[in-house]
Amino acid sequence: MAGREANAETRARFPIPTPFGAFMTRIPVTILGATGVVGQRFVRRLADHPLFEIRHLAASERSTGKRYQAACAWRLGGDPYGNLGNRVLVAGHPDTAFAPIVFSALDTEPAKVLEPAFAKAGALVFSNASAFRMAEDVPLLIPEVNPDHLGLLTVQRTKRGWKGGIVCNPNCTGTMLALALAPLHKAFGVEAVFMASLQAVSGAGYPGVPSLDILGNVVPFIRNEEPKVEEELPKLLGAFRKDAIQPAAFGISALCHRVPVIEGHTEAVSVRLKGNPSPDAVREAFATWKPEPRLPSSPEAIIRLHAEEDRPQPRLDVDADGGLSIHIGRIRPCPLLGIKFTLLGHNTERGAAAASLLNAELAVAEGLL
Amino acid sequence: MAGREANAETRARFPIPTPFGAFMTRIPVTILGATGVVGQRFVRRLADHPLFEIRHLAASERSTGKRYQAACAWRLGGDPYGNLGNRVLVAGHPDTAFAPIVFSALDTEPAKVLEPAFAKAGALVFSNASAFRMAEDVPLLIPEVNPDHLGLLTVQRTKRGWKGGIVCNPNCTGTMLALALAPLHKAFGVEAVFMASLQAVSGAGYPGVPSLDILGNVVPFIRNEEPKVEEELPKLLGAFRKDAIQPAAFGISALCHRVPVIEGHTEAVSVRLKGNPSPDAVREAFATWKPEPRLPSSPEAIIRLHAEEDRPQPRLDVDADGGLSIHIGRIRPCPLLGIKFTLLGHNTERGAAAASLLNAELAVAEGLL
Amino acid sequence: MAGREANAETRARFPIPTPFGAFMTRIPVTILGATGVVGQRFVRRLADHPLFEIRHLAASERSTGKRYQAACAWRLGGDPYGNLGNRVLVAGHPDTAFAPIVFSALDTEPAKVLEPAFAKAGALVFSNASAFRMAEDVPLLIPEVNPDHLGLLTVQRTKRGWKGGIVCNPNCTGTMLALALAPLHKAFGVEAVFMASLQAVSGAGYPGVPSLDILGNVVPFIRNEEPKVEEELPKLLGAFRKDAIQPAAFGISALCHRVPVIEGHTEAVSVRLKGNPSPDAVREAFATWKPEPRLPSSPEAIIRLHAEEDRPQPRLDVDADGGLSIHIGRIRPCPLLGIKFTLLGHNTERGAAAASLLNAELAVAEGLL
Amino acid sequence: MAGREANAETRARFPIPTPFGAFMTRIPVTILGATGVVGQRFVRRLADHPLFEIRHLAASERSTGKRYQAACAWRLGGDPYGNLGNRVLVAGHPDTAFAPIVFSALDTEPAKVLEPAFAKAGALVFSNASAFRMAEDVPLLIPEVNPDHLGLLTVQRTKRGWKGGIVCNPNCTGTMLALALAPLHKAFGVEAVFMASLQAVSGAGYPGVPSLDILGNVVPFIRNEEPKVEEELPKLLGAFRKDAIQPAAFGISALCHRVPVIEGHTEAVSVRLKGNPSPDAVREAFATWKPEPRLPSSPEAIIRLHAEEDRPQPRLDVDADGGLSIHIGRIRPCPLLGIKFTLLGHNTERGAAAASLLNAELAVAEGLL
Repeated sequence: MAGREANAETRARFPIPTPFGAFMTRIPVTILGATGVVGQRFVRRLADHPLFEIRHLAASERSTGKRYQAACAWRLGGDPYGNLGNRVLVAGHPDTAFAPIVFSALDTEPAKVLEPAFAKAGALVFSNASAFRMAEDVPLLIPEVNPDHLGLLTVQRTKRGWKGGIVCNPNCTGTMLALALAPLHKAFGVEAVFMASLQAVSGAGYPGVPSLDILGNVVPFIRNEEPKVEEELPKLLGAFRKDAIQPAAFGISALCHRVPVIEGHTEAVSVRLKGNPSPDAVREAFATWKPEPRLPSSPEAIIRLHAEEDRPQPRLDVDADGGLSIHIGRIRPCPLLGIKFTLLGHNTERGAAAASLLNAELAVAEGLL
Repeated sequence: MAGREANAETRARFPIPTPFGAFMTRIPVTILGATGVVGQRFVRRLADHPLFEIRHLAASERSTGKRYQAACAWRLGGDPYGNLGNRVLVAGHPDTAFAPIVFSALDTEPAKVLEPAFAKAGALVFSNASAFRMAEDVPLLIPEVNPDHLGLLTVQRTKRGWKGGIVCNPNCTGTMLALALAPLHKAFGVEAVFMASLQAVSGAGYPGVPSLDILGNVVPFIRNEEPKVEEELPKLLGAFRKDAIQPAAFGISALCHRVPVIEGHTEAVSVRLKGNPSPDAVREAFATWKPEPRLPSSPEAIIRLHAEEDRPQPRLDVDADGGLSIHIGRIRPCPLLGIKFTLLGHNTERGAAAASLLNAELAVAEGLL
Repeated sequence: MAGREANAETRARFPIPTPFGAFMTRIPVTILGATGVVGQRFVRRLADHPLFEIRHLAASERSTGKRYQAACAWRLGGDPYGNLGNRVLVAGHPDTAFAPIVFSALDTEPAKVLEPAFAKAGALVFSNASAFRMAEDVPLLIPEVNPDHLGLLTVQRTKRGWKGGIVCNPNCTGTMLALALAPLHKAFGVEAVFMASLQAVSGAGYPGVPSLDILGNVVPFIRNEEPKVEEELPKLLGAFRKDAIQPAAFGISALCHRVPVIEGHTEAVSVRLKGNPSPDAVREAFATWKPEPRLPSSPEAIIRLHAEEDRPQPRLDVDADGGLSIHIGRIRPCPLLGIKFTLLGHNTERGAAAASLLNAELAVAEGLL
Repeated sequence: MAGREANAETRARFPIPTPFGAFMTRIPVTILGATGVVGQRFVRRLADHPLFEIRHLAASERSTGKRYQAACAWRLGGDPYGNLGNRVLVAGHPDTAFAPIVFSALDTEPAKVLEPAFAKAGALVFSNASAFRMAEDVPLLIPEVNPDHLGLLTVQRTKRGWKGGIVCNPNCTGTMLALALAPLHKAFGVEAVFMASLQAVSGAGYPGVPSLDILGNVVPFIRNEEPKVEEELPKLLGAFRKDAIQPAAFGISALCHRVPVIEGHTEAVSVRLKGNPSPDAVREAFATWKPEPRLPSSPEAIIRLHAEEDRPQPRLDVDADGGLSIHIGRIRPCPLLGIKFTLLGHNTERGAAAASLLNAELAVAEGLL
């Protein structure tokens, strides 16, 4: 399906209230941190997006003023540089790079400074950084899981005096887990979660994990990963009550490992659910989950269930649906908690770039722009 | 330390009651399944052992009559074929391959037939196969964990009318886990165990896992592995009462994965212990554990504790102590069960060949031959 | 572009003389060896092909009578089993599996018997097997390299009394090399070729290379690979004179290695060319090569030239153009032979399944059916 | 063999003229660049060396003043930090780090400045850096290949007015190749050499090659590697005439690749030799080569010949002899140049740390200290 018609068709299916009038068919956006692994995925996803159009590619001082193709080692397949290789990189400040929507692939430290600057200047910042995820007035958003949390934005704007705002997506590992737990929490209620991960090297960015560390090896430690998952999950599955998120009240333990896989985090999950449902009942809850609303980038199915005893596997499954669905297999009884299963998701798409993008699509659909 | 003096010194340190009189300085042994991955490790370990001497190398019909070096694709470093490359392989039957001690690296199906045949003929069979592990009159033995279980042998001999007998070592994954849980069970009492494994390809033998399945990938399934661990652990940590093993009464859940690692199973372990001890108390229990008796092949330390936040790692640590110690690191609080840690062990040594060998050394030390 | 319209469009662009009349819009084909790695690629490529329609999936006795999805471990992405999972496998004999076109993914030994049987029965067999490649009356065909060699088919039919015939594609490693040498041979004349390969594990089929052999390793030997390349290249670039191929008269040496790569053979090539052209002249010869005829599966460009100093690389480049183009980079002076460069191609597509398919498309275009 | 007795025995076998009198039993040495991958190997090799004793560990400014274990991420097995973890790192200048022998694991740029400074101050610098390898008055030394080149030191001292001097070992890839060619050059005369390499990631240091670049991949480019090999080989095999090296007069072409291997460079080598000897004659030349003099670190055999058709392989063979021998296999006819074979060597031992060390041992044996 060629891009142009696809866009027309998508716009027909998703009539959105654009505040930019008749002249502007797509909303201009800025990408902060455009040269990194996640930034590149933003560029590729936005190169032909029905709602958004790249206005600014922003990068750190070292790269400002260079052309994108000169400053960026493109690591993805497809058209290199999203056909924006000649675009000149600008500094990541509101006065040089403002757009009504900003996608942030920044590291934590610059995110702490730059994201508020853009929000104050009136931009809606969709951030993949961890800087503001646990702030109590910042939505930690997954459209399929907690779309109502977007309501926090009003609280945030009031409290901080911002015209714009910051919306975060969770850590990649937590994103897949939240997507898997959401239908179970809705159908049964989650009481306890055990999760051991086998994470891809792309999660550490580029250059990231040295090959001397990971070839033929396992590293049983990823800095800050376990606390992130353990903190973010209760907020993600929490309830939006009045002006705040009331975290879900389940116990959770994460044990995180790096493995020699390029793309795709595998998670071994064990859960205790209210009423102790059977594997068949759990499978049914996954199969029948149809979260609303559908967004332009939503995959056909959010959850792909695998019947083969040895699937999902990252190399074979992670690229299905453009990396936007999650994969679940081996649903079976757990002698300890009741149910265990294998979970797989694309860490730099579903867990990063596409996660921010879906959040922006939700915000547009909700008329927040 | 050259082999000959080492043997003399070891014999001095481990005076053993040999039933073979003054003429015989080492006990003759047979290796069943000598050409496989575990069989080769038996050969290498026994090539210069202070107590044992290889009498017969036995293999399947296809290889019988060939020289060892012609029938076996040697996969290990060191002197190939344990300097027995010219030895002619014999059929794995008591009339062609009898020795008072038999090490079995057979697959399950042949083990079901051949191990009883040798036991009936009077041999003590030390088996790495799973065929008889859960038989109630067969010791599932780890010298450091449950040396008293060897007492089952009397029950077995009486019940089955055998002069010899069968002693099993557990599944490789369960062996490391039992070694890690033993000091905790003794110091505190284990109440619940969660274990997610990242297992090396050598565990599947040779040719074993196809490279097309595992390069840059994770396979979240190993046939029969999870039930083996879940069944064997309670028996391993159980108490020998009268004439039977009373299994330990803790819940256990195993989630097993194959990863692209050559040697060394990594296990992410979470445990609930009586009294909810602190990580420091758990570390102390590991550090002060000195199981008896010391055997000729016992490593200096059974448990190697790692202080670095990203250790143990299979490629860096698995070969320490000839693969005979286990490695524990990242002892930390678990929000769900109380304590979590990383465990690593050498699956084809500590988890297979050396496991059977230590069992045989224990049997000799206990005068069972 | 949906399959149906694509087919209509392709048929318009490629009007072919079909001998099957108005009722039949696509030519029925049989796939021999449908369950293997190459067989699966045939199935996927033919599942929606404009000229061909799968009539029979044939397999060895062990699988005959089973459904395709039961007998085949599908190793590819995309719709598993090419949507033919329910098709019942038939025996690979002309009386159970005849079709006017037969694609053979057989091993050498069965190919020696079955391919002639189908040819005698009137089928045109397009074979990926090595059994008949060097037979003097069998075309060793690459449409872009030596389309006139198809003329050997008349010789073959006369000599063997067959109504059908056998057309072979070369060994995967030789295919890429021939595609790279063809424009150089045409523009300058090849005098000597040195080729060291770094070959993917998929080239050995499934289960193929054990992971214990290749993880973190290099195996400097692939059985029969070096002689195949050294024999086939002169025939491939030879001239069809009267009724025979006169081999090209250059020296060639191949040094073949297996590396831990899933898909894509890399080849380090050094050539001596007549007139000792400069790297720029060689680049020009690659860039301007436009072989005829264009076929339905022909990629946009046969040769993709890479300017980056560290490309092509198998993981980043091999899937471009559906694996049908070859990749060339690092064209530079060779102190010994004059020119050296890096070559990459998709071994199971361009080097196997798609190679046979292109040959069949050429035969149809030439009216040989 | 315990270290202490080994030293005594070695000293007995290698009586060396030490200029430091009766009180000093070992010569003090400095390691420049002690924290890197090669520096660590120097430390490990020198921790218990019969002739040398580590006096100073020097590092870059960033690390000066820190303890070795705090500044260095130890990447090797064995006792971490060579038991020198508490040693305080000093600045790499002659006034803070002088010793009569200096081992340099510096990068090229600092080597250009610091190595002459130490040489001027009177130290003999044994350098693994490339800075001075091609300087016409600097020996590019391999003790087994060209021990007489050490004579250049006199030229160097005279010309530069240094009391000490600089002695280089070649690039790792070139070292193995020179060791393989030396016996052939002596027995027959080398006329042309073609070499395609498959190089381990350890050759790029730490962090070195990002895992995202090399997992399941091949990179057909290593900066400066091909010219280094092509330049250094003729110098290495050249003749020391009067006061200069006359380079050997053969053509040589190198094609270098990075592969996902931890340790060990594999080289596919093809050679034209005078008189066109048979593979058997070549094998004989390798087998009978006994270079003089024997040094304390010399392995039992410099060349290990492999008879198996698929050896040598880096994972199985590279650690033999502590990484000090080279491995040759698959000696066979080359249709182009006459002879081809597979070569393997340990790139960070034989190709780096141990190379410098052997050079120092030679200098001591020759009384140059």
